[in-house]
This record gives sequence, structure tokens and C-alpha cells, in this order.
Amino acid sequence: MSQLRIPGPTPVPPAVLEAGAAPMFNHRGPEFAALITRITARLKELMMTQNDVFMLTGSGTGALESAVVNTMSPGQKVLAVSIGEFGDRFTEIAHAFGANVTRMRFESGENADPQRIREALQADRDIRVVMITHNETSTGVTNDMRAIGALAKEMDVLLLVDSVSGIGSLPYPIDVWGGDVVCTGSQKGWMAPPGLSMVSVSERAWDASRSAKMPRVYWDYAAAKSYLAKNQTPWTPAISVANALDKGLELMINEGLENILARHARVGQTVRDAVKGLGMELLPKDEKYASNTVTAIKMPEGVSSVDVQKAVREEFDIELAIGQGPLTSKLIRVGHLGWVSDQDIAEVATALKTVMPRFWK
Amino acid sequence: MSQLRIPGPTPVPPAVLEAGAAPMFNHRGPEFAALITRITARLKELMMTQNDVFMLTGSGTGALESAVVNTMSPGQKVLAVSIGEFGDRFTEIAHAFGANVTRMRFESGENADPQRIREALQADRDIRVVMITHNETSTGVTNDMRAIGALAKEMDVLLLVDSVSGIGSLPYPIDVWGGDVVCTGSQKGWMAPPGLSMVSVSERAWDASRSAKMPRVYWDYAAAKSYLAKNQTPWTPAISVANALDKGLELMINEGLENILARHARVGQTVRDAVKGLGMELLPKDEKYASNTVTAIKMPEGVSSVDVQKAVREEFDIELAIGQGPLTSKLIRVGHLGWVSDQDIAEVATALKTVMPRFWK
Repeated sequence: MSQLRIPGPTPVPPAVLEAGAAPMFNHRGPEFAALITRITARLKELMMTQNDVFMLTGSGTGALESAVVNTMSPGQKVLAVSIGEFGDRFTEIAHAFGANVTRMRFESGENADPQRIREALQADRDIRVVMITHNETSTGVTNDMRAIGALAKEMDVLLLVDSVSGIGSLPYPIDVWGGDVVCTGSQKGWMAPPGLSMVSVSERAWDASRSAKMPRVYWDYAAAKSYLAKNQTPWTPAISVANALDKGLELMINEGLENILARHARVGQTVRDAVKGLGMELLPKDEKYASNTVTAIKMPEGVSSVDVQKAVREEFDIELAIGQGPLTSKLIRVGHLGWVSDQDIAEVATALKTVMPRFWK
Repeated sequence: MSQLRIPGPTPVPPAVLEAGAAPMFNHRGPEFAALITRITARLKELMMTQNDVFMLTGSGTGALESAVVNTMSPGQKVLAVSIGEFGDRFTEIAHAFGANVTRMRFESGENADPQRIREALQADRDIRVVMITHNETSTGVTNDMRAIGALAKEMDVLLLVDSVSGIGSLPYPIDVWGGDVVCTGSQKGWMAPPGLSMVSVSERAWDASRSAKMPRVYWDYAAAKSYLAKNQTPWTPAISVANALDKGLELMINEGLENILARHARVGQTVRDAVKGLGMELLPKDEKYASNTVTAIKMPEGVSSVDVQKAVREEFDIELAIGQGPLTSKLIRVGHLGWVSDQDIAEVATALKTVMPRFWK
């Protein structure tokens, strides 16, 4: 199997794969009770929050849908800030469920400017909810959640955060920086297979949920909370993925959050240095906001990312991602989150250094 | 690990667990394309349908929600037929999403009487959708889908079917009997861990979906269809569960659907014979409708199912289910679907024969 260097699913360590292959047990029995108790405690530690944390069976997009439907009502005004494909998706969910969406779309490669968010909120005081992407996988840009969290507090608005590919790998102490619903997914920094998404839910989000009229059953946080009180989930959970996630979390606790964040900062820098050394450009306009979990590299004029992806796959057995939407053939994206070492990423740098000059005359 | 005899999650064969522990790959790459192509073809074969079949990352309840939101509009009339807890849940989803629900609740232990469904549809010709549970896990009753499917055709109504614990283990040739959306889950007869649900979608359901106004993004069938055309899913799928499901389906194809159905009929009869031999009663009022995937046994007066469950767990290392909702302490439910042999179920019969007389003076 090739080295998987896409922004998710990420490689899963052997111990985690093995944990995911344990025999099934009753999700209404004592084994699952112990499992969900452990997972919840570890997630709270690594997400640095005392908020409620729920494990939902579904993809990251499901978690985003849950954030919307649990906190808003049809017709309610929301500021949807997007810096790429995943921000657009979050926006589209709010629109589909009938929110009155004010769209703030930054150009791909830009980060969300807190000042523009402030102005939009000042211009329309009826907007009481802001949606934003922490780490935009499609463009390799990380937003400044510290500044945006502080702004949300100052403007007294609810903040819904897609941190699917951020938290756990990038600094995001929820209880310090803010964020009322923060979404992530098992297949990202958590080193487990896809199938579970995790959300943290603040007191403020609970307040919003009590008057939120968007329809919800499967994603209902109130159901998740009442079942978690009995150490269960409302619906049959993805048990094997939960077993894997539990092991991934154990590995993370053992490594220590500070070390994990430092490792991600290091591998991110390694990839960016390699790209710049080749004279290529990063998509992020300001390297200060370049993501430490995914690097988006602009293909030089006339070079298709599909060809580069193929050459790297065939010659180095490394799987890179191409772009998404209009950027499909214009970007190579290197995923470096979760189970990724300095050595792994040195190999990716070598592959790029070997292959790129061939395409780029 | 104990022998799992609950109605799901069901035991997973070692080869399936092993398949689920394969390293991750790109869900937008060639390995996943081959996987979803194989899974879809095998599901169509075993569900006996040429309808579209989609694999959704989520629990069975998610599939039920998908059936509702893809085919109906708020305010639309629907006849929700329920014979137990899962029928009630299906009903509740339609209600939560704003359907105008006519509830038809049969007493627990009864099957849905087609004649009463016909009368309800004749009484209100504006009802163009019927929702029903094929196999009601909470009561161990299987509805007559052949009769109900024929009735739906005759009355020209859309038929949404919760067959989560039915199809694949009980006879249900969709293209012969009918059913416009039929839902099932990986952790039932399919012998895989929970985390994926599967739905078949008829042409008639597609017609309904085009005017259906309930909000949907995550569960949207149109998105599933457009991505399946490129051998992908719209959102990151539960890859490890898909790998497991693929292996489970392979085992099923090798055994053969007819043999699988005969085996389930046999083990169902074995459990019922043991129960009757002990002088105990089945919850199903008419044994003709007793389920061959789950047997619901009434506890004699003064006996709590919790005590029986505990004794069987401790002395035989067999995990049985208790009842749900108001029947929690009044029922023992034996799951016998998926990976279950005659020998397995003989052990359950022995356990009941040993333990029950002790409680029942």
C-alpha cells in the first residue's frame, strides 16, 4: 500500500488498525460504556474543552450539517465565511436548510480577514451566527481562530467552526479561543479510519438549540446528550471505528498535544521549504496562514497536477491529492496530518524534487 | 468475547474483521472505485433489484431519515405504519421533518394488517406515501412485504421500507414485491461492523425526489448518484467498514441467497421451538409473522429480563438483548441474523432451558 499523503483519510498506524478489528459487542452494554467514556474524556483533553463532546456516526460533512440544524431556524440570518471548497459546502448546508445566508467568500489562497467579518456584523446587527472553516483543506490555508474567536465573543455571536482537518493537529484550545460548535472527523489528525465525526457543543450552543427550529432527528444533539448520560449513543455507532479512534487517542495522549502540534509545524515547514526551494509557489498568499496539515502547491503554467500525481504514485508509491473544483488540475495538495513523521515528509520532498523538474521546462 | 445474540450489531466473521483492518486508501482513487463497484453489484444481487443502490456513512436511522427527506415535502400526507419501536422512530422522523403524518400503530406483537392499510388509503386519497417496517426488531415480528408491496402498487402509492434487520436475511425480492426506498444496515445480516447503511431507490422514488422539498445535503440521493457515476461517494465514506462489508458480501454470495434464507428460517424455528418447549410465550401474536432474524420472548409474570440476560451472560457467555421502551424488562430478544449457525443457536436454546426454570417458579 502506498504512503498516503492526502488530507484525509490519513494513514492509520498498525496498532489502530488492529484495535479496529476487535470482535463486535453490544452498543448498549458495559464494553461500549467504557469505550465511549474513555473516548469522550480523551477528546475533551485534546480539544482542550469542558464543553460537551459527542461522537456521531457520519462523515465530517455530517458534523457540519449537525452544527447548522441544531443551532438555527429557517429564515435566521447567518454570516457564512468561506475561503474555499469546504467553506462553500458549509455555506450550502445552511442555505439548504433555509437560513438567510450572508456569504463572505475570500479568494482561494486568502485567509478570512477578521476585520471584514467585524464590519459585516456591524453592518447587520441581526446576524447572530457566524460559520467559518478553521483549516481549509482545498487551499491549504488556516484561519486565525484566536482572532476570530475573540471577535465572536466581542460581537456576542454564535460561532460554528469546521475544524475537521484542524483541531488535534493545529493549535485550537476551544475553551480559551472560543467556538460554540467545533466539528472534526476520525480520519484526520486522530489517525483512525473515517466513519465518525466529533463535535464540541458549548453552553451558548445549547441555548441556541433550545429555540432552533431546523428539523433534526439523526443529528440531534439533545438525543446525543441524553444517551451519553447512560454511556450510549442514540443510534447504533460505528463500533469498529470507535475502537480504532480510542487507540488513536491513546497514542496521541502518549505523545502529548504539545509534541503533536510541534511535529505538525515541523513537517509543514519541511514541505513548504521544499516547494520554495524548487521555485514553485504555494497557493496561500501569505505563508503565515499556510496550513501545517495540508500544503497546496500551485502547478506551474502548463503542468497538470494529474500528471504529477501519477508520476509520484508510480515512481515513489506516494499518493498525493490534486485540487478540488476549479482548481482540480492546478494544484497538488500534500496531506501531512495525523500519523506523519519527519522521515515520511522528507520522502515526499524528495519525490517532488525528482519529479517536478521533468514537467517544468 | 461473548457470543453476541442481539439483533445488531451482529457477530462479524474473522475474515471480515481482517478485511476491515486493511490500510487506508484514497476514497477518490482507483482502490475505492473498485471497492464501491463491487459492493454495489453484490448488494443489487442480494437485494434482488435493478434499482439504484447507495452506501451511506451512517446508522440505519440515518438511512430512514434519508428515505423521508429525499421523497417528501413539508405538509405532505403520509401513512406511517408502525408495529413497534422502530416503526415509531420512522414515524417520528417524518413528523420532525414536517410531514402531515397519519399514524397507524398496531399493538406490539401484531403484524401490520394490509386490509387496514388499504382502508386508510381509501379513506384519504391524498395520502400518496406509506412508510413501514419490514422486520420490527423490538417485537420480533415480520410484516408481509409481499402483500404490502402489492397493495402499494395497486393503490399507486410510494412505499418507504425500513428493512434494516430484514433484507439479506429474510426473503425480500425488491423488484418482485415492490418498495421504492428500502433501507438496511451493515451491522445486520450483512455480517459487517456498524457504520454504513444501504438504500435502494426506485424510479418512482426518483420521481418523488424531484419535487420533494424537505431539506437535505448529507443524505441527498442525487449527490450520491452523481458521485457513484464516478465510483465515489459525495462525502468521505467509512472505508474500513466498506472493506469489511465487501468481504461479508463475498461470503454471502458464496453461501448463496437461498441457503442464507433457509438457514435463517431454520435457526428462527429452533429458537421458537425451544421457547415453546419451556412453556413460554412469544411476543408475536401469530407465529406465522414471527421473525426469523430476532425472537422476542415474553418474560413470565414476576421475571425480569435483566436478570435472565445477566445469568445467560455470566454462565454461558452469551449476550442476549432485553426489550425496548415500555417492554424493557418484559422481553428477552434473541438476535439470530447474519453470522449464525445451527450450533450457535442450539447453545442459546440450551442456555434458556438451563436458566429460565430457575427464575420461573
